[in-house]
Amino acid sequence: MGKVIIHATITLDGFMADTKGSIDWMFDFGDSDEKVINTFMQELGAVIGGANKTQTVEEGEIPYGGMLKIPMYLMTHEAHEPIEKDGITYTFIVNDIAQAVGEAKAAAGDKNVALLGGSISRQCLKLGLVDEIQLHVVPMLLGEGISLFGGLGERIDLERIEAVTTTGINDLRYRIVK
Amino acid sequence: MGKVIIHATITLDGFMADTKGSIDWMFDFGDSDEKVINTFMQELGAVIGGANKTQTVEEGEIPYGGMLKIPMYLMTHEAHEPIEKDGITYTFIVNDIAQAVGEAKAAAGDKNVALLGGSISRQCLKLGLVDEIQLHVVPMLLGEGISLFGGLGERIDLERIEAVTTTGINDLRYRIVK
Repeated sequence: MGKVIIHATITLDGFMADTKGSIDWMFDFGDSDEKVINTFMQELGAVIGGANKTQTVEEGEIPYGGMLKIPMYLMTHEAHEPIEKDGITYTFIVNDIAQAVGEAKAAAGDKNVALLGGSISRQCLKLGLVDEIQLHVVPMLLGEGISLFGGLGERIDLERIEAVTTTGINDLRYRIVK
Repeated sequence: MGKVIIHATITLDGFMADTKGSIDWMFDFGDSDEKVINTFMQELGAVIGGANKTQTVEEGEIPYGGMLKIPMYLMTHEAHEPIEKDGITYTFIVNDIAQAVGEAKAAAGDKNVALLGGSISRQCLKLGLVDEIQLHVVPMLLGEGISLFGGLGERIDLERIEAVTTTGINDLRYRIVK
């Protein structure tokens, strides 16, 4: 069975995006370690992304830029028919994150499920559904924005299982201690 | 002239202490790299600490546990006579953080000045008074607490100049890009 892994690029102060949702700042700081990224991507079997992605699929803006031809599960507040686009199936799940994790794990088989976005990540942490966290920490303070962990509200112990600092970005992998 | 360096141990979600100010959790995760700590301490010539330390000096609870026999500048809201205790001089500075940095730099000479605490660190970042940041990132999410960078409100670009991951803690040194 694959693992459920939070995947995020964040600033040193923990933001995934600025207050308007932009990640333009991300591109000022070079790339993560190529081997870390490639390995992570190759081991993915499904993705769970944010509710705000319903529209973006139709506009062509999709998780991992459409690079990964694997099932995508997108959290919504309203039911929506699945979308097939460029070899990817987007399944919309209404509110029930545990259901999304169950379906994504089944679809992923032996491969891993990536969790994208702060709300989804925090909900899954609280429900005990997360196995690992893969972070790419960009060398900047954004000062304000959309936080990955902000509002979590409970203590979760971790064990660092990988730390790669070959580029200016910290590629860090943690295991949730249960 | 020495550098002005924010020095903090934080959780992966950026907290220095829990909501009650306790750092008991910090001791569950082992130590930072000994060489990093020793080098940092040897290069320090003065320390600027928080306003809430007036009382703690008198109670014997002091920055770096009294291990460092160097001048300590403590921010207060009310004037207070200097205190001499166990070979350390504690000078109290009323509200003016730039004055504290000026005095501490003068006292430190060629050595560095450590900034302790979130409010002091953020004020100095906003005033452009900080040269570097030395962090020790503990492998846990605290969920809530006293944040190092929370409320900063402005973007500050960094360059990572050291990353030591010999222990389970990430010992990271950043330079402020001005």
